[in-house]
Amino acid sequence: MHAPGDVRVVERDSPTIIESTDAIIRLSATCICGSDLWPYRGVEAVDDTPMGHEYVGIVEEIGDAVKTLKVGDFVVGSFVISDNTCEICRAGYQSHCVHGTFVSQIGTQSERARIPYADGTLVATPERPDPELIPSLLTASDVLGTGWFAAVAAEARPGNTVAVVGDGAVGLMGVLAAKQLGAERIIAMSRHPDRQALAREFGATDIVEERGDDGAARIKELTDGLGAHSVIEAVGTQESLMQAIRATRPGGHVGYVGVFHEDVTVPGPELFFSGVHLHGGPAPVRRFLPELIDLIWRREIDPGKVFDLVLPLEEVAEGYRAMDERRATKVLLTI
Amino acid sequence: MHAPGDVRVVERDSPTIIESTDAIIRLSATCICGSDLWPYRGVEAVDDTPMGHEYVGIVEEIGDAVKTLKVGDFVVGSFVISDNTCEICRAGYQSHCVHGTFVSQIGTQSERARIPYADGTLVATPERPDPELIPSLLTASDVLGTGWFAAVAAEARPGNTVAVVGDGAVGLMGVLAAKQLGAERIIAMSRHPDRQALAREFGATDIVEERGDDGAARIKELTDGLGAHSVIEAVGTQESLMQAIRATRPGGHVGYVGVFHEDVTVPGPELFFSGVHLHGGPAPVRRFLPELIDLIWRREIDPGKVFDLVLPLEEVAEGYRAMDERRATKVLLTI
Repeated sequence: MHAPGDVRVVERDSPTIIESTDAIIRLSATCICGSDLWPYRGVEAVDDTPMGHEYVGIVEEIGDAVKTLKVGDFVVGSFVISDNTCEICRAGYQSHCVHGTFVSQIGTQSERARIPYADGTLVATPERPDPELIPSLLTASDVLGTGWFAAVAAEARPGNTVAVVGDGAVGLMGVLAAKQLGAERIIAMSRHPDRQALAREFGATDIVEERGDDGAARIKELTDGLGAHSVIEAVGTQESLMQAIRATRPGGHVGYVGVFHEDVTVPGPELFFSGVHLHGGPAPVRRFLPELIDLIWRREIDPGKVFDLVLPLEEVAEGYRAMDERRATKVLLTI
Repeated sequence: MHAPGDVRVVERDSPTIIESTDAIIRLSATCICGSDLWPYRGVEAVDDTPMGHEYVGIVEEIGDAVKTLKVGDFVVGSFVISDNTCEICRAGYQSHCVHGTFVSQIGTQSERARIPYADGTLVATPERPDPELIPSLLTASDVLGTGWFAAVAAEARPGNTVAVVGDGAVGLMGVLAAKQLGAERIIAMSRHPDRQALAREFGATDIVEERGDDGAARIKELTDGLGAHSVIEAVGTQESLMQAIRATRPGGHVGYVGVFHEDVTVPGPELFFSGVHLHGGPAPVRRFLPELIDLIWRREIDPGKVFDLVLPLEEVAEGYRAMDERRATKVLLTI
């Protein structure tokens, strides 16, 4: 990204192995994330910055210390690098690995990428996937893994009512995850007919169009005045966070994965007397990758449906425009 | 409390049964809570307000609908009224019961009290207790139950390192609870030698005297740079809350029970990237009462040691002064 609103395709040097734990991958597909729109809109600084953190591809080269992957493997990787051996990783928080870095610093809207800690970051598929599986595998790299984590953080489970704040790609993946985790009732909060339809396809049982306090009040109405057991917050604004907290019953769980920007705060007294649990943050996608790949491989889930625009990498600038103007929910870039 | 700083003993009408689910109890002992100091110090409004919400005593009269108690029973009650039958209570959040009210609105720094929803709020001891057990049973009404909830909310358990922010009565009870729940290492944060000694007696393995960010940094030093698995926040100020969040490892748990006053906020971006779990609020003491009474009855725990001043109810004003001036950690009032 040359500057806000200005995305260019440029030639860069091909990456090479630096550490013995590295792998070089040739990307098969990548995509544009809602969070990529922050710098695009000038909210975050950008200056000829490589972009992208979602990726699937084929291993082209590995360092001497890489044990679980071989050249030619098709791999899915998390949007955060992790060694997957430290105490934090072993506890399932690979997105906070002591050696963690964000893949956005590498930039995977590209043909090739160097992935550090390849054993700890990448997971190989059983074999080369059918092309039709690639979009779904790509979602596992971030949006599916993030929506899944949100549902786990919100303790979606059999018998529960789950409300989902946010109808972007992550929110829709949260609906899918809640369904897989056995939630009895899944309330998608959306006012866009196309996204409502996709939410229903992914498992939503109810749609609520109201937002903010009206939205929270509607959730309470639908749950005997108590609030949902589990609420997924997949936006990251002050309004959406308060909507999530206020839609949750005492003792219930809010799982938040929409990145909170600077001005977002949780009011202490309201949090205290709400009695809710709060958990979230950057999703430890690596924890879930083996399970998600398996679900996709067995065609139990089809999260790739979330892509509603496919473009070649050369047309990435149009992809940003389409997402910025909300003409597309999620753009897949072929390479 | 007539006005801030002015506590008086006055005659009031004896309470009578109003609802069939009520019980009238004659108190055996009550106490002064750290939270009673807020109005005492003028931070909360007060105007001839009955005070007190911790209590043990003998059932004198019951309404027709009361099933689990009989006249003459010795009972311990939670500081929040609960029906213990609604969906929220059944999920273990009796402090948010749909029929919940705070006992502070009744005021148990008194000889008698009317307790609504007696079956759902009070738990009888197996028989009349030895007088030496009364202080410990009284702690179960709030400070022990609250410290216990904080330890549960912070997921204190075998193998874990638990840090406790706050060396007041609740923090000390948090230490005791963490020990009972099997924590391997318990770090009490205190700079008062007498409270440090009591913390060690209750199970603390380490003492940290630093506060704020220095305190959090010290906890990280003691935990391989990662932070504690579980942190109990038993103060309720902005500084103590940030100390707790910053002392917790990613994926770890903060259990907060210090009442957050108006100006306390959780900064969204820091919370997001911390990866911690937050849970707390008014403790559902009723959930834990049967277990806590049993532990006390079998003399497995002796939380009554937290009382370091005993006065007759008539001298309640001196009790407030002693706590306000930090001459006492916790004052028991005999009746």
